[in-house]
Amino acid sequence: MSHIKEISSIHNPLVRSTISLKEKSRERKKNGLFVIEGIKELQLAIKGLYTLKTILFYPELVAGDTILELIQNISPAPEVIAISKDIFQKLAHRDTTEGIMAIAVAREHSLDSLKFKNDNPLILVAEAPEKPGNIGALLRTADAADLDAVIIANPKSDLYNPNIIRSSVGCVFTTNIAMGTTPEIIQFLIGHNIAINCAALSASKPYTKVDFTKGSAIVVGTEATGLSEEWLNKATQNIIIPMHGEIDSMNVSVSAAILIFEARRQRGF
Amino acid sequence: MSHIKEISSIHNPLVRSTISLKEKSRERKKNGLFVIEGIKELQLAIKGLYTLKTILFYPELVAGDTILELIQNISPAPEVIAISKDIFQKLAHRDTTEGIMAIAVAREHSLDSLKFKNDNPLILVAEAPEKPGNIGALLRTADAADLDAVIIANPKSDLYNPNIIRSSVGCVFTTNIAMGTTPEIIQFLIGHNIAINCAALSASKPYTKVDFTKGSAIVVGTEATGLSEEWLNKATQNIIIPMHGEIDSMNVSVSAAILIFEARRQRGF
Repeated sequence: MSHIKEISSIHNPLVRSTISLKEKSRERKKNGLFVIEGIKELQLAIKGLYTLKTILFYPELVAGDTILELIQNISPAPEVIAISKDIFQKLAHRDTTEGIMAIAVAREHSLDSLKFKNDNPLILVAEAPEKPGNIGALLRTADAADLDAVIIANPKSDLYNPNIIRSSVGCVFTTNIAMGTTPEIIQFLIGHNIAINCAALSASKPYTKVDFTKGSAIVVGTEATGLSEEWLNKATQNIIIPMHGEIDSMNVSVSAAILIFEARRQRGF
Repeated sequence: MSHIKEISSIHNPLVRSTISLKEKSRERKKNGLFVIEGIKELQLAIKGLYTLKTILFYPELVAGDTILELIQNISPAPEVIAISKDIFQKLAHRDTTEGIMAIAVAREHSLDSLKFKNDNPLILVAEAPEKPGNIGALLRTADAADLDAVIIANPKSDLYNPNIIRSSVGCVFTTNIAMGTTPEIIQFLIGHNIAINCAALSASKPYTKVDFTKGSAIVVGTEATGLSEEWLNKATQNIIIPMHGEIDSMNVSVSAAILIFEARRQRGF
């Protein structure tokens, strides 16, 4: 049974370091650590076998026993610390922190470590996605569609940005995620015999005419600039969602979901 | 040719009234007016035949001639006013206001005024959507899919919230939109022989097994609570997107897009 410590001074060094980890990508990288907030998010991190170093909880909102139950099967057990109201208010990002935070160990997310459940994997590749909310929505869609992996090309932010964790509702911990440069990923996909279907705006095949039943990557770019030439030139085929409106531009997480679920439909649910 | 006035005092009453219209739903309702920012948004409002009362522009960012050209075919011509840097900075919501704003006349959006292009219309109904960003994304998807209409049941915010205008990239002006209470809309759909397909989580038919080629409404609720019993009880059928993940919950604009584009696929693009 873990012992529960208490801290009540907002000058405790742990408070400052937790804030740094939440706010600064540089601090996360330097220490290889990040912060998780919320019960569902923590449960998914545990399910995703993340290593938890420390759990901070505010006893007014969540009971110590709940915490101990949550972590009972984790080894090594994280340090569990009860924090005061002052500290909780200083650390919590939002109302929905639900009285619980954890400091966890980051992963590498290298391409080499990717393993697929299926012989004909279905993968989403997102090139340089910028908005954490979009990345979170992509990860939720990847979860719902049970994709084999999400690969981020030329990432612009680290995965453990609190806004990505929150907007993914913790799916960032249970989705198979890798990162790399565009050339590395193209080489990886070709090497694994996975078709590269690039979402493009011109000279493209309607997405409903594409066979997604073989090993397939659906590759999407940013809303502002689309995919780089590097991707478009190496595509097995460029694909398009036919649009008939005034602006013909959907949110990137919306477009990706339409393509992913067409692939799912073809493969059977 | 319109005459261009100038105002340079931030104490000019027009400055205060423009700010009120941007910030306060109550002011928009009381005056039947709202504010448009950005060139694309203004173009779509003109395309959507909205009545413009006043155009405010900051000559450092956009030329007076551009404005006059933009409005040359509008009758009655709006008043065109050049504003100073101080006023522009006070009024502009964001970098992307692009030096142009307009005060426009709001519409009623009654169900009675809805007209359909098709005998077998395809409609999106969203019950009580809360986040302006979600409503904007729904409207962009409705535009891309060329839906016959979007109907908002029990609206929680007015359509002319600046965040809805912005996140819809102006599609709010060119999409056929109506609002009403849930009972009114249900009666309307039944009266027009339009099938009510309610996105639900249980006892539902997989969406790919649904025939969307007849007159069809796709009805979605909020992410937090889903659709009300009122809708589920009156549904022609409840439909579901099969999900196989850890959280099985997608963003509402993502789910709606998957359903809408399956309907489009069945109908041919």
